[in-house]
Amino acid sequence: MDLQAVAEIMRLKYRYARALDTKDWNELASTLTPDVDAVYGEHLVFDSRDAFIGFLENTLATRLITEHRCSHPEIEFSEDGRSATGVWLLSDTVIIPEDGMLLRGSAYYHDRYSLGEDGCWRISRTGYRRNWETVTPMGESGSVRLTTNRWAMLQQPRAS
Amino acid sequence: MDLQAVAEIMRLKYRYARALDTKDWNELASTLTPDVDAVYGEHLVFDSRDAFIGFLENTLATRLITEHRCSHPEIEFSEDGRSATGVWLLSDTVIIPEDGMLLRGSAYYHDRYSLGEDGCWRISRTGYRRNWETVTPMGESGSVRLTTNRWAMLQQPRAS
Amino acid sequence: MDLQAVAEIMRLKYRYARALDTKDWNELASTLTPDVDAVYGEHLVFDSRDAFIGFLENTLATRLITEHRCSHPEIEFSEDGRSATGVWLLSDTVIIPEDGMLLRGSAYYHDRYSLGEDGCWRISRTGYRRNWETVTPMGESGSVRLTTNRWAMLQQPRAS
Repeated sequence: MDLQAVAEIMRLKYRYARALDTKDWNELASTLTPDVDAVYGEHLVFDSRDAFIGFLENTLATRLITEHRCSHPEIEFSEDGRSATGVWLLSDTVIIPEDGMLLRGSAYYHDRYSLGEDGCWRISRTGYRRNWETVTPMGESGSVRLTTNRWAMLQQPRAS
Repeated sequence: MDLQAVAEIMRLKYRYARALDTKDWNELASTLTPDVDAVYGEHLVFDSRDAFIGFLENTLATRLITEHRCSHPEIEFSEDGRSATGVWLLSDTVIIPEDGMLLRGSAYYHDRYSLGEDGCWRISRTGYRRNWETVTPMGESGSVRLTTNRWAMLQQPRAS
Repeated sequence: MDLQAVAEIMRLKYRYARALDTKDWNELASTLTPDVDAVYGEHLVFDSRDAFIGFLENTLATRLITEHRCSHPEIEFSEDGRSATGVWLLSDTVIIPEDGMLLRGSAYYHDRYSLGEDGCWRISRTGYRRNWETVTPMGESGSVRLTTNRWAMLQQPRAS
């Protein structure tokens, strides 16, 4: 195992998740190749960084809190060491405060990575297959209350 | 620290968890020594791979969704480097759709590993001590709904 | 990346979390520098190991079950390699059995580490910023039941 390359790919994935969940779209773009494929089932497929980030920004920027927790990495390299595949266990949480909805899910990510001319690894393919998913109502009609939300200002702008 | 051996043992544990949770019993068997000890409290004890896998297959094959998320590895090697111990923090989820039950638990795994003649690490002892466990009712009478289940076909076979 | 130092700092963080959650205050003290800064927002600030451990011991010893699950480490070293910073994704659970309360939260830890004269890394600064937090009622009036508690003896001392 090339432990240095494994460590760099793990850092890449953690940076991807942090950028995604803190809604830092420029940082997120820096983790992807321009021609990245992102495949979530049959109906949610993107074939470029611009299309993928555009969708995420549009969907996640204001209404949703997300958390993508990635663990159990199993990384394999191609013979020339310039590309790799990765399987990860995902545990994700999606909170939609205005709809009073808390979603928890489990999936396996199947990623591909490529080593650029600049010596940096980037994600060239990502996507996952769901294992299970639960939905819990939140708020006054539900059993769970949201008591802190770092992005509340984005979600409930004050009247001006 | 022998980082290469630590990385191999972490991969072994991730493969064990993935095989267990995807119900891949052949893959699971390949992660264990034939004389593995599996100890879960006083009353659930196995002293061979065949007995342990037989129990898991019988218990988990159809009715239960499980997820074993392992983190915080603390691996220590014997002086000759051919065996090791590992402490892991486990966060597990068990879902029983037909009973409308969702269990979440926390425990510390205490494992032993041994390096085979073939150069592969395998689990020679596993088991954990529970820290806490919660049970939440699911479905119509509960607050949580199961909205996706990769193994639903196994659990609700169509009438033929 | 100095993988050996990264591995030692990860071990340090896992030992910190295990000591904290198993209420082993001596072990916890061994992970901190004497002048550690611990900063949780504006109102919860400590500037020494004694003050920080005193607070934790007083707050967590008997009434609370805690779990601090740390993942996604991003470790950076100073030029001389004798200090480092770390960002981690925290997923924490706090259970207060006697109040029937289950808290789940997410945050990013921002830590500093320093390499001692004895060759051991210790935490010299810790603290996190909350992303989100939910509270769920437990017990007879709530939807979640606590079915196992390793520390129940501490919480419900027998009458003597």
